[in-house]
Order: sequence, then structure tokens, then C-alpha cells
Amino acid sequence: MTLSIYLSGEIHTDWREQIISGAKGLDVVFSAPVTDHAASDDCGVAILGAEEQKFWHDHKGAKLNAIRTRKGIAEADVVVVRFGDKYKQWNAAFDAGYAAALGKSIIVLNPPEHQHALKEVHAAALATAEEPRQVVEILRYVLTGALPG
Amino acid sequence: MTLSIYLSGEIHTDWREQIISGAKGLDVVFSAPVTDHAASDDCGVAILGAEEQKFWHDHKGAKLNAIRTRKGIAEADVVVVRFGDKYKQWNAAFDAGYAAALGKSIIVLNPPEHQHALKEVHAAALATAEEPRQVVEILRYVLTGALPG
Amino acid sequence: MTLSIYLSGEIHTDWREQIISGAKGLDVVFSAPVTDHAASDDCGVAILGAEEQKFWHDHKGAKLNAIRTRKGIAEADVVVVRFGDKYKQWNAAFDAGYAAALGKSIIVLNPPEHQHALKEVHAAALATAEEPRQVVEILRYVLTGALPG
Amino acid sequence: MTLSIYLSGEIHTDWREQIISGAKGLDVVFSAPVTDHAASDDCGVAILGAEEQKFWHDHKGAKLNAIRTRKGIAEADVVVVRFGDKYKQWNAAFDAGYAAALGKSIIVLNPPEHQHALKEVHAAALATAEEPRQVVEILRYVLTGALPG
Amino acid sequence: MTLSIYLSGEIHTDWREQIISGAKGLDVVFSAPVTDHAASDDCGVAILGAEEQKFWHDHKGAKLNAIRTRKGIAEADVVVVRFGDKYKQWNAAFDAGYAAALGKSIIVLNPPEHQHALKEVHAAALATAEEPRQVVEILRYVLTGALPG
Amino acid sequence: MTLSIYLSGEIHTDWREQIISGAKGLDVVFSAPVTDHAASDDCGVAILGAEEQKFWHDHKGAKLNAIRTRKGIAEADVVVVRFGDKYKQWNAAFDAGYAAALGKSIIVLNPPEHQHALKEVHAAALATAEEPRQVVEILRYVLTGALPG
Amino acid sequence: MTLSIYLSGEIHTDWREQIISGAKGLDVVFSAPVTDHAASDDCGVAILGAEEQKFWHDHKGAKLNAIRTRKGIAEADVVVVRFGDKYKQWNAAFDAGYAAALGKSIIVLNPPEHQHALKEVHAAALATAEEPRQVVEILRYVLTGALPG
Amino acid sequence: MTLSIYLSGEIHTDWREQIISGAKGLDVVFSAPVTDHAASDDCGVAILGAEEQKFWHDHKGAKLNAIRTRKGIAEADVVVVRFGDKYKQWNAAFDAGYAAALGKSIIVLNPPEHQHALKEVHAAALATAEEPRQVVEILRYVLTGALPG
Repeated sequence: MTLSIYLSGEIHTDWREQIISGAKGLDVVFSAPVTDHAASDDCGVAILGAEEQKFWHDHKGAKLNAIRTRKGIAEADVVVVRFGDKYKQWNAAFDAGYAAALGKSIIVLNPPEHQHALKEVHAAALATAEEPRQVVEILRYVLTGALPG
Repeated sequence: MTLSIYLSGEIHTDWREQIISGAKGLDVVFSAPVTDHAASDDCGVAILGAEEQKFWHDHKGAKLNAIRTRKGIAEADVVVVRFGDKYKQWNAAFDAGYAAALGKSIIVLNPPEHQHALKEVHAAALATAEEPRQVVEILRYVLTGALPG
Repeated sequence: MTLSIYLSGEIHTDWREQIISGAKGLDVVFSAPVTDHAASDDCGVAILGAEEQKFWHDHKGAKLNAIRTRKGIAEADVVVVRFGDKYKQWNAAFDAGYAAALGKSIIVLNPPEHQHALKEVHAAALATAEEPRQVVEILRYVLTGALPG
Repeated sequence: MTLSIYLSGEIHTDWREQIISGAKGLDVVFSAPVTDHAASDDCGVAILGAEEQKFWHDHKGAKLNAIRTRKGIAEADVVVVRFGDKYKQWNAAFDAGYAAALGKSIIVLNPPEHQHALKEVHAAALATAEEPRQVVEILRYVLTGALPG
Repeated sequence: MTLSIYLSGEIHTDWREQIISGAKGLDVVFSAPVTDHAASDDCGVAILGAEEQKFWHDHKGAKLNAIRTRKGIAEADVVVVRFGDKYKQWNAAFDAGYAAALGKSIIVLNPPEHQHALKEVHAAALATAEEPRQVVEILRYVLTGALPG
Repeated sequence: MTLSIYLSGEIHTDWREQIISGAKGLDVVFSAPVTDHAASDDCGVAILGAEEQKFWHDHKGAKLNAIRTRKGIAEADVVVVRFGDKYKQWNAAFDAGYAAALGKSIIVLNPPEHQHALKEVHAAALATAEEPRQVVEILRYVLTGALPG
Repeated sequence: MTLSIYLSGEIHTDWREQIISGAKGLDVVFSAPVTDHAASDDCGVAILGAEEQKFWHDHKGAKLNAIRTRKGIAEADVVVVRFGDKYKQWNAAFDAGYAAALGKSIIVLNPPEHQHALKEVHAAALATAEEPRQVVEILRYVLTGALPG
Repeated sequence: MTLSIYLSGEIHTDWREQIISGAKGLDVVFSAPVTDHAASDDCGVAILGAEEQKFWHDHKGAKLNAIRTRKGIAEADVVVVRFGDKYKQWNAAFDAGYAAALGKSIIVLNPPEHQHALKEVHAAALATAEEPRQVVEILRYVLTGALPG
């Protein structure tokens, strides 16, 4: 059994790297959005031409990014959604809702202070974790039956 | 043609009332979450028994609210998602993602300062409005072909 | 918003009547399996001819009952699954799994002593109740926002 | 043609091993739940933190197990559901219902004394067997056309 | 609960009328193909222009009939497929396969001499009857729980 | 049986009116896009604000129109797609493809000179007509079995 | 592009072998039912135990065969359905209907004398051929663009 | 992540070759219709026999081509639809609509003079490009995060 994992959300800390390196040796395949913030913001105009309006500048970029996001979520067995300390992170919650409607298994990764604000997202998740290490432990358990320690 | 509309998101201003009263006479049916904030937070424990942990207190409530939300979105032709000035509003973005994956027509209603943070949600929407009046005008146009003015 | 409710499971106590009478005045439509135990067991051979083997006697009946069960669950927004004190009740758990795969909102109704044995079913449910009264309270809250008391 | 088989249900006898070893040489891929009873019960709290309430202890574990179960059933062509002599086994019946709603081919494996209690599950199955050997013979016939003996 | 029934197959005896009149008073809605044999054969060329080749003459007609058949089966809860004594009746078996793939409840109605030739169709059905009266009894039981006699 | 019909395509002749008035007395419900050309082109900027770029002017309008088109096609049993003499009419062909992927019954209405260019669309249709009168005759036949003349 | 082909229908002539050998070198994968007539008829009782009634003897076998048929059709891009000179062949027409409802590309292979009786099946097909050679030519064209001769 | 791309539309310039050669080294798989115009027009009669009527000549061919087109679009993550300078190109718009209904990511490639006529197609697309080079840049960005220049 190979698990396909999409790592959605925050792009300013190394949580993806922690999970990917922690999961070494497990039968997993990871995908994720483009995590270069500047490229992600500007891809639309860089390829398809400049826009004067910020709305359309962002719109063109967000749609290109959607090609990758849709594909990643559609092929995932598990979608891990990370909420960090900064920004609105509505794209992370959007991905969680999208994944929920497709019946994907969802793991939410967030600091405890976001608990109340995330209750609707947690209600659709199969696990709520605080540390990337716990996500690795879940993947290891699901694939091998082995518990930590 | 009857349009079924789900009004998702912010519950602290009267935007739903503005849309509902503005749409009087149109062939529309509205649904929405429970908008009594306290009831929405406490419904789980009020009905199914108290919890010591805040997480489970919230969890039980969020799941009861999901019965209504899922039904409302599943039956909607159009999902209007309102982002206001306060709170994290991850539930609104979650609903938008859920609606997008089901192929619903999405209208986003937000103040201009949220434009950049909402670009992924806007990319999945068929309209981005700033005023409830515009949502009414969209519904009127879609149903009757009449433009404002 | 009309909620369509399928009442699955135990047929030897009056829990269905309690819920139906408690929900009077709410915008709900109920459906349920045939609850006449003898008719439910013998319908196949009574209509389609006797069988010597108990297996085929049961098989013919179970398939006729499936016409009603499938229809009831397919049209339901909410499936309430009741586990009582007697019998194996595998049909109730089967209905719960069937409803879960269709994305229905599930409410489980069971005495506390079955908690551990039902954990997989609870994991797929949006609420776990012990009393029919609580199911009524959930329906009232979901439809009207009103909490008990 | 490769058949993917999910082996659901009883975890206290060696029926899975009998089927897997009997099917050697056939073009089959097997998957199954975690069959270490203690790990399966405690995985949630071991990874995500202890709970005081038994309900939530079980809930966290059942949800982690659901990541594996859902994936296994979703990818299966055939779901074999084994009912043994002990326990309530509602999770097995739940899996059968879940598989039925997804249109999977179901083989039920049970001792004859459970026949009547399983009639609804049998009505959704393509085969009812009593011995693991018969499941192997079915897989061999389906893949190669060869009958036993 | 209203059952929607599509009556597929043989058009040369009054089996449909027997079922419809027998079901009087039940909460059922019936649909069926056009049963005027000549109109059914010639509708394509009568409306869309003559064809020299018999193949295209038939093709145009069969496609118009498909508009009605698809709609009838898609909206049905139960598809009754009648095999009579004459003709190849491949359209009846085709409808049965189409209904099976959509997960419809299927009742097959055939004389006993066709039993062996229909075994694959029977394997996908929830009931096999020989008399229209039995179909009525099934519908009555499914809707009301009442058995004949 | 009520047939729901979406009338897609050309908006410069009275073909819709001919079909609707010809179908008087039949159990049909019609829907269609907004057929006021100017309103259809300008609805986006009229409601949501002006755009300097023609592309975004059109984009905003086309997306509002999509709310109505999607709803109309999704609820239709039959989609009639009319190709006239003028314009590129790519929206008509787009609607035909959209309807085909959803499994809708498609009737194409076009002058004979477009035959070759429409062959891929015809290949997905159940009827190809040249006159609105023929569409009415198809609807009458499908609903009542009556042929013209 | 690899095409997956299911070869349904007649099992008494070598049409499958003709297609498979003719398609050598093309990027195709074939599947088919068990074509050993005796094994196909008796597989149920040979594995799961004898039945006194012919109906249940056949029923057990037809259900085992359905495991293979469902898998073959579900994974096919193209379903070739062959009607021969003998037998009722309702299973072939059933497979065609099943494939049509799943949106598979269907090729019908039949002698010209069956044309009228097969018109409903032809109406759902993308090609009607008389010779296995033509099926090979279709596969070659679809995969490589090369025409015969 | 491997992206599967279907290249739909115009067959008279080398835009497909430009994209395929530009994408060398990327993890992509391309498919496309048969681009030999004469073969594409005549395949039906060449394989299945001549027709006197142009309509049926074209019909038989268009249906064979549909086997390839359906497969290509169904397996694609991204559908690129190219509109050129000549012909009606309704098949390209049809493919775009078909892809949209399946939820595929769509990139439209057209000269600026077609902008207004394509607004409904653009409204369903995630990108609108004028040059094949831009399509390559999108694929590179989606797969690797690298922007041009």
C-alpha cells in the first residue's frame, strides 16, 4: 500500500521538510504547492503578461497554481493541512474543504491557540496534530501498524 | 428556474438580511448556518452532554452544525461566501472549498482589503462582490436578465 | 429546509415512535425499514415462492427489504442508526457503512455499554446519542437553531 | 488482470494468512487493517495524546484506523468480510456496507450459525463462504478460470 | 415514500396494464417506453427524414427512443424488466445492464423456461418473478409492509 | 414524465419561441440563457464594476452567465443546441460538450451547410434536426408516443 | 496511450483469438469472461457447494462470474460486444447496457441478420462491425492513426 | 508528479510539436487526436464500409475518432484547446466543454482576434495563452515552480 500525501498550507517554516525526512523509508509519495512565495504570487503575469489591476495580477497567478493544487489533492489519499502563525491562510482552509468534499482523509496540523477557530475544519478531519513528528507517526502507523517509542 | 442559495460565512452583520430582503420577488430559496453565535458554539454539549476539554466541547458542536451546512451546500445552486472584518473565518473558506469541489457556482463577498489573501478563493468563484446589493443584482440578472439601473 | 431522515436498526422498542412524535411540527420526513419482524423475515417466500433451504428463504426476503432500505438511505439527509440490547444487529452496522460511503450525516443511538464495540461506527458519525429525545433535539437545532431547555 | 483484495473483519484467527498463502502465484494484491489488537485500540492516544474519557480515547484511534480502512476498501476490487465467533464485529458489517455502497464485489466468510443474522450482508454479496480455502478457490477461478479438484 | 418504477421490455402483452391496475392506491409513479411497435420503429424517419438504408432508418428511431428510456431509467427507483416469449429482446437485457450499472433495484419478470439464459441478469436483480401479480405484491410490501393473502 | 429542456445557442432568431409555442400542452419545462445580447455582454461590468481591458470586461460577464448556463444544463433532460448562420458560436459547441460529458440527451439544430463542421457534435447527439418544428415533434413523440401527421 | 479492451459475448467461436492475434504489436490490454462454458456454468456449486434447485445452481455461478465481468468492464476503455448465431445472449446485451451507463466506448460485432434486433444496442455504440478484422482495424486506427490497406 | 496533457483543436499548424519539444525533460505525457485530416475524415467508411450520404460518412468517422478523444480527455490532467485561424472549430469548443464538465484544468490557446468569441470558453479555463511557448512555461512552472527568464 502506497499512501499519496498532499501537504497543504503554510509555506514559511520547514514543516514539509520535517515530515518528508521523517517519513524516509515509508511507502509514501508527497506532493505540495509551489512554496516559493514570490513565484507563486507572480507566475500568472510572468508567463501570460502583466496586469495593471492587482486583482487580475493575483487572479492569473492563483489560477495557474490551481492546476497544481487540484491535481495534488485529487490524487492524494491523505491531505495534511498546516495552519501557521501568520497570514489569513484562507487557501489552507479552502484546500481542507475541497479535500473534505472529495472524501479525502484529512490531518490538520496547527498550534493549540488556533483550536477554536479551526473547529469546523477539525470536525472534518481524521486527526488533529500539533507537531510534524506526529504526522510522521500517523503515516508510519497507518502503513506498518508500528506505534512510536 | 428556482435558484437555491446558501449564505455562508460571517454572522455578525446583517448582510444575509440585506440579500434576502433585496431578493424579494425573485424565484430564490435561501439557506444558511445557525447564526446565533452562542447556540452554534454550545449546541453539542447542550444536547449530548458536557465536556471538560474545550477541544471536544467544540468538536461536538461543530459536527452538529455540519449536518446543516452539508445539507445547505449540497442543495445549493449558488454559494455566497462572506468574509468580514473579524475572526479567522476559516469555516467560510472551508465552505468555499467544499462548494468548489462539488462544482457549485460561488460568489465571494469581501471588503477590498482582503483581496490578496482571498486570491485562491476568488480563482474558484464566478463573481467577487463588495456589497450585498451586488449579490442581489447578480441573482436578479441570472434569473430575469434584468440589469440594475 | 426539509430534512429527510432514515431510521435504521432495532425494531423491538418504540424508539422510532418517540422520535417521530417528538419531532412533530418540525420540517422533517421520516422513512424506515418494514418493522414487522415476521413479515420482514418471510416476505421473499410469501411473494416469490417457498424455499427448502433457510439460506435462500432469508436471501429472497433480504433482497426485497433492500429495495426499501436502499431507497430510504439514498434519499436521506440524515441516517439515524439505533443499536439495542439484543441480536447481532449487523444490518444496522451495514446500513451505517452504506450511509457513510454515500456521505450521509449519521447519528448513532446506542446504550453506553456498546461504546467500545461501536467505535468505528462512531468515528463515521456526526453525533452519538443515548436517548431518542436527543435525536429530536438535534433535529430541532439543525432546523431551527433552538437549543433544549 | 490484477485483483486487489481487502481482507476485513476478525483479527483473532489466521484466516488472512490462509488466504494469502493459498493465493500464492495468483495475480493478487492484498490489503487489510492493522491486526495488532492493542495497537489498533491505542494508536490515537499513543500518537496524539492521552484522553481521560474512554469515548475519546477510542474515537482518536478509530479515526486513525479509518485512514487505512478507507484507502484499502477504495482501492479494492473485492472485499472479503470475515465474521468470527467472538465480539460484536460491527466494524466488519460497517465495512461491508461501505463496500456495497461503492459497488465493490463482496465475499462474506462466516460460520453457518451466523447465517440468519447476516442475511442483509449476504444479500449484498456475490459469494458466501465458510472456509478461507473457498475464498482462494474463488480468486483462482476469477483470475484463471480453473476450478478446484 | 413514493416509488418510481420503469417498466422495461416486452410490448406485446398487457403485463404493464396488469401491474399498473394492480398497484392502484399505492404511492407509485410508472414510466415506460413507447409501446406502439410501429411508431417505435419508424419515429426517426417520420420526424427527421427518410433513410434508404435499414440500418440508419433503425438508428434514427432507436436514438429518439433512447431519450425516453434514459430519462425513465435515470429517474426510477425500481426497474422491472420483462422477458416474453418472442423476439430477441436484447433491448430488455440492455436496459437491465444499464439499470444495474446505475445501482437501480431490478425486478426481472420472465417465464421459467428462460431461467438459465437469464442467469446473469438474475444475478444483478433483487427479485425474479413469473407473474405481474408478484411484482404488484413486491411493490405493496416495499411501500406498506403488507404481505399477500 | 416531465421533460426539462435547455435551449442553447443562437440568440438572433426566434427559434426558441417557435419551439416553446409549438410545445404548448406538452409536459415540458424550458430554460435558456439570457438572450438579450447587450445585457449578456455587459452584465459583469454593470454589476461588479467597469474594466479597462476588454478581456476582463468579457470575463466578468461570461462568468455571471455561467451561473445560469450551468444550472440550466445540469437540470435538463434534453439539451437542444442551435447553430445559426452568424458568429463563431463556440459557446454553443461548448455547451454541447458540457452536456455530453454529463450524459444529457442532445438534439442539434442546424442548417445543412454546417453538417461537416458539426460532425463531432452530431456524433454525441441523439438527433440532428434542421427545423424547430422537428424538435417539437421529437418532444411530442418522446412524451406521448404520437408521430406527426 | 494504452487501450484496455473487454471482449464480451459469444464464447463458441474464435473471434477473441482473431482480435487478439490481429492486434499484436498495438498498445492494448485485453480482458474477457471465463470462456470455458462448463466451468462458467458450474463454478458456483463447485466451490461453494451443490444446490438442488437449478435457479440457485446458476445463481451462485453467475455471481462469481460477475466478479470478473464487473472488473473487466470497469477497467475497460472499449467494450467489444459480440453477438453470434446461437443462444439468447442476454448476458452480452446486459454487458452492453452496463458499459453504456458507465460511459465506455462500445463496439458491437454482429452478423447482419441481427441488425434490427440490435438497434437499441447499436444506438449506444460508437461502431458496428461484422468482422473481427474490423475491430482490429479500429483499434489500430484509434491508437496509431493508420488506416487499412 | 506526472502531468497528463491532451492537446485538442487545430490540426494545420505545428503547435503540438512546439509544445512537445519545448516540454522535453518535464514529467509530462501527451495525447492528441489523429491529426491526419484525410484519415480523420474517412476512417469510418474505410473500416466499416462506404456510405452514400455525406452525413453518415462523417458520422461513422466522427464516432471512431470519439473513442480516442474521450480516452484522451478522460485521462488528462490538463486539456489544452487550440483555436486557429481557419474552419469553424466546433470540435475544439466541444472538447473544451466536455473537459470543463469533467473538472479538468483547461488552457486555451488562441490568437487575440478570437478573444470576444471565446469568452465563454475562457470563463471555464485556468489560463488563456497566445503562444505555444506560454503553454510550455505553464507546464514547467506547475511541475517545477520555475518561472521563465
